[in-house]
Amino acid sequence: MAKYTVTFSPENKIIEVDSDITLLQAAEKAGIIINSLCGGDGLCGECRLQVIQGKAMADKNAISFFSKDEIEHGYVLACRTKVADNLVVLIPPKSRVEQEKILLEGAAISYGEPEKLVLHRNGHEPVFPFDPVVKKIYLELPVPNLEDNASDIDRITREMHKVAPYDHYEISLLCLQNLTEQLRAHHWKVTVTYARHNGIGRILQIEAGDTSDQQYGLAVDVGTTTVVIQLVNLKTGKVIGVKGSHNLQARYGEDVISRMIFACVRGSLAPVHQAVIININNLAHALAAENHVSIQDIIAIVAAGNTIMSHFLLNMTPCSIRLEPYVPTTTVYPQIFAREVGIKINTEGILEVAPSIASYVGGDIVAGVLACGMADKPEIRCLIDVGTNGEIVIGNNEWLVCCSASAGPAFEGGGAHSGMRATKGAIEKIEIRDGVVSYETIGKAKPRGICGSGLIDAIYEMVNNRIIEQDGKFNESEKSDRLVREAGELRYILAWPDETETGQAISISESEIANLIKSKGAVFAAIKSLVDYVGFSFDRLDTIYVAGGFGSSLNIPKAIAIGLIPDIDVKRIQFIGNSSLTGARLSLTSIPAFENSLKIARRMTNVELSNYAPFMNEFIAALFLPHTDAKLFPSVKYSP
Amino acid sequence: MAKYTVTFSPENKIIEVDSDITLLQAAEKAGIIINSLCGGDGLCGECRLQVIQGKAMADKNAISFFSKDEIEHGYVLACRTKVADNLVVLIPPKSRVEQEKILLEGAAISYGEPEKLVLHRNGHEPVFPFDPVVKKIYLELPVPNLEDNASDIDRITREMHKVAPYDHYEISLLCLQNLTEQLRAHHWKVTVTYARHNGIGRILQIEAGDTSDQQYGLAVDVGTTTVVIQLVNLKTGKVIGVKGSHNLQARYGEDVISRMIFACVRGSLAPVHQAVIININNLAHALAAENHVSIQDIIAIVAAGNTIMSHFLLNMTPCSIRLEPYVPTTTVYPQIFAREVGIKINTEGILEVAPSIASYVGGDIVAGVLACGMADKPEIRCLIDVGTNGEIVIGNNEWLVCCSASAGPAFEGGGAHSGMRATKGAIEKIEIRDGVVSYETIGKAKPRGICGSGLIDAIYEMVNNRIIEQDGKFNESEKSDRLVREAGELRYILAWPDETETGQAISISESEIANLIKSKGAVFAAIKSLVDYVGFSFDRLDTIYVAGGFGSSLNIPKAIAIGLIPDIDVKRIQFIGNSSLTGARLSLTSIPAFENSLKIARRMTNVELSNYAPFMNEFIAALFLPHTDAKLFPSVKYSP
Repeated sequence: MAKYTVTFSPENKIIEVDSDITLLQAAEKAGIIINSLCGGDGLCGECRLQVIQGKAMADKNAISFFSKDEIEHGYVLACRTKVADNLVVLIPPKSRVEQEKILLEGAAISYGEPEKLVLHRNGHEPVFPFDPVVKKIYLELPVPNLEDNASDIDRITREMHKVAPYDHYEISLLCLQNLTEQLRAHHWKVTVTYARHNGIGRILQIEAGDTSDQQYGLAVDVGTTTVVIQLVNLKTGKVIGVKGSHNLQARYGEDVISRMIFACVRGSLAPVHQAVIININNLAHALAAENHVSIQDIIAIVAAGNTIMSHFLLNMTPCSIRLEPYVPTTTVYPQIFAREVGIKINTEGILEVAPSIASYVGGDIVAGVLACGMADKPEIRCLIDVGTNGEIVIGNNEWLVCCSASAGPAFEGGGAHSGMRATKGAIEKIEIRDGVVSYETIGKAKPRGICGSGLIDAIYEMVNNRIIEQDGKFNESEKSDRLVREAGELRYILAWPDETETGQAISISESEIANLIKSKGAVFAAIKSLVDYVGFSFDRLDTIYVAGGFGSSLNIPKAIAIGLIPDIDVKRIQFIGNSSLTGARLSLTSIPAFENSLKIARRMTNVELSNYAPFMNEFIAALFLPHTDAKLFPSVKYSP
Repeated sequence: MAKYTVTFSPENKIIEVDSDITLLQAAEKAGIIINSLCGGDGLCGECRLQVIQGKAMADKNAISFFSKDEIEHGYVLACRTKVADNLVVLIPPKSRVEQEKILLEGAAISYGEPEKLVLHRNGHEPVFPFDPVVKKIYLELPVPNLEDNASDIDRITREMHKVAPYDHYEISLLCLQNLTEQLRAHHWKVTVTYARHNGIGRILQIEAGDTSDQQYGLAVDVGTTTVVIQLVNLKTGKVIGVKGSHNLQARYGEDVISRMIFACVRGSLAPVHQAVIININNLAHALAAENHVSIQDIIAIVAAGNTIMSHFLLNMTPCSIRLEPYVPTTTVYPQIFAREVGIKINTEGILEVAPSIASYVGGDIVAGVLACGMADKPEIRCLIDVGTNGEIVIGNNEWLVCCSASAGPAFEGGGAHSGMRATKGAIEKIEIRDGVVSYETIGKAKPRGICGSGLIDAIYEMVNNRIIEQDGKFNESEKSDRLVREAGELRYILAWPDETETGQAISISESEIANLIKSKGAVFAAIKSLVDYVGFSFDRLDTIYVAGGFGSSLNIPKAIAIGLIPDIDVKRIQFIGNSSLTGARLSLTSIPAFENSLKIARRMTNVELSNYAPFMNEFIAALFLPHTDAKLFPSVKYSP
């Protein structure tokens, strides 16, 4: 078979490949992750590359994705183009999944810091006691003699009884196999790593000397779009690093449905599972290296994700979740060794996964409820987590109901031509005054697109400035040089080509606006349906917590003004960022918190909106800015 | 490297080997197990082969093991002889470890049958309820719908709560990963395999349809010399097959001490561990095949062995057991998957190991106490287990004390030129009347040697017939053509060359008699020391149970008459065969029995005889037939 070299620009990565593989496969081999939402089926048109030298063998059917100009300039779809020559290929910024970049430039920008959570608890609310799911204890054991020749493990548990809370201990075989040598090699001064398992102590590891200063854990938010990890010092509870990357499962489908189809219809669960394991291993490795922590000192992981992500994480088939009656394999996940799913931390390190409630209400939302503390207090509160799915919880310390609605990826930057995730260069704030558009980007970089919070601002500013009508259609009577028609569709230009990173205008079209209105409509209809279901009005909600990956911050008044969030006093609304991650961290650092999450999952009643007749009417009523029923948004007044 | 063929006669197995390997290695490669008590160090002289064609390269130092005649006839030590030519080699019967043969010809001959145990319990004593450590349950689950879309695992545990005794269940990851497909592929009619683990249910396997008729377990006695397995139907509790083989660890040393030296001083734990795993896998495979049982339907193993065997079984180092203060890694073994140590049964099958008490009082003796039921009743009873170690337990339902003494392998056929294990062709009964020797062999075969019960008979008959004196020396004044002098030592011939399988006389020498007296002395001294330690006399013992691998049966009066067993009414003495195996089977078929064994292990107090000053005096006093203190054996009168 012929061999060719492919050079990927601008980084000039050169790789030798066989002639039968695609440019997408070649890029993967070179360690470059190309956007591929459809999983390489030539359907999404995201994996655009420019061949600048050599002859590639492009699939003719792919030309529909390109303009004549683009075809002449060598644009191809990476997944539909085979290597048949030595090639030099340019990867346009938009085609690149910028792994590792999301949070590198400041976790504080994109994700709620631990301290923020304490603020949510108003300082005086009870905080879970510090009691990590896995911890270390240093022991100085008496040396055995003929009068005291108890077995090695009895000698250890005897001492542990004095200081640790368990009457009984179990021990893993691997640990037991090394025990005798460890104790003697280290003069009976050892550090024991142990967890709680089914109510008893579980001894995981015996180390020489006092290593109790080196104990770390990972809190992981396994999002459909993004995987984020915090590295936590389990001696102090302090977060010492945070890192995120795009969920590599994106190559098998952008949303959970297409990933389930990939795993189930094609029967390819393993690669989808492995993708997220690679995510976690890469992030964990990078976090450990940057913070001078040994991977072997990472002894615990708590992961939170939606039910489908949790199933993929544990290599369990999600296939019965996909189809009616939507049944998951399990909602409570067993405590396992991280190695059992290929996660590379300490060999005896433990993986716990936050419990789910139902197929479409997952551990991420349970973790969110845990994080905002709404299940601990008598006041009735509401959590709105806007991700690819919108999930809503209402309740207090006595009852909890929840539901979910497919919001689509609009607020995470999907579906819109200029949409992007909340990473460097994303426009996150927009103001329009007298036809002048001003914006702010993440990392103060040249704009590359618009993230969720920017899109909310854009919709609000356009309707408030009468650039669009309340039904989302452009107001053609208002003349503006920013309103242009392209390929038969009206678009509003937010950033001119000379302002942007890509040299292309950042704009938003009428159909994209319609998409965003559908997303906000689905979320609001879900909130309204759930409030109605429990026989309440919005006034009864003491606090609304808004969580999600919109961006660094969310302009609450604008989110209300477009009809995404109920119109209550803004002082009673808090944006809490990535509450799934915060909840995972709480569980990691507190067994009572983790056990509380199991109680939350058991207590919560899921309302299947697909079975709840009024939902569709609510959805249709919400396809208007802010809403067809203006009385629901009394404070919202657009400029005349 | 030159290649040669070696032909092993009489089976004519031909194997091609490199020139640098020994005949012992070549035999191993050919699947023939040669006796090698020293582990191939040229020390024991057991691996004698006769080279009948071709030139072998024998170590000169090995010639001390052979007579001039033998050297001329091509006798060599297999471990000290390299292959340097195409060879034809004859394996003399004595050099061959007849794997698989021990029990093939009738378990009833060598080992106590289950029914026997019930007899020990006198019919009216409580028997442990039938409740196997792992079992199957057939469930017909309601098909999920939108009103009832509980997770798959909840659907199963919901049904199990109705019929099985656990409030909570845990499930292995592997089982969970296959659950969803299994349920749907099999129309919600499935069989669940589950165990008890730390007080909660542990779901191990979900199978299609009703497989509850196919559930089997293995009870394993891991003896230092012999590994014996019973295949048990876990639906009925019936033993459907039994098989034994020599412990393959023998190649690394005959006794536990030399195996520990091999594992610890040479740092080679792995091969010693693997040897017993090969034993178990071979026996399990053969048992399954013969009884038309699928290996996948074997879902549980309970193994009992001494503490060192249990450590080897679990691949745990026994190195701290060997040296003062004799500390084991653990005495209670974790419930593990059998696969974790390489045992090939059902992938999710469980291995439980009977708990030990101390380094030299193991799970075999705990299993024995369980089997004879002495820990359940107020009467004070005694268990004597004579193996390579002699182990003694005295006690009742309130207290239990135990000790062990090194008896040596004499009663298992070791150490004596004509000694052999209790297998086909072993002389197991002997009578001498008026100089006429009559005997019975196992399997009614031509005699090949003498096993433990035969040796006890031999000593008794010789002292009763004044062939030897009470100090074990030959009475040279009694003239007999059976008393001959060979290589400077007197020997008594029990079987003439023309009667035997090997064509060589079966005889017993003065030094071998001294060895047997030492063994019986050690066992009796241990019994006497322990009875004294608790301040008792033999009269207080309600029953003495005698266990061990002497042979098919034990002549109790003769065992008393040589001073091995205390001189109490023979009606109060019962030979119970392999009580370790019986106890393992009880634990396999009854969780309450297994839990009782944990209680027995906790309750039992070990007396270290090496610390107990009177023991050595007792030992010296017992080096006489029946004893230097005749008052201890009032009923013993040798013929005048």
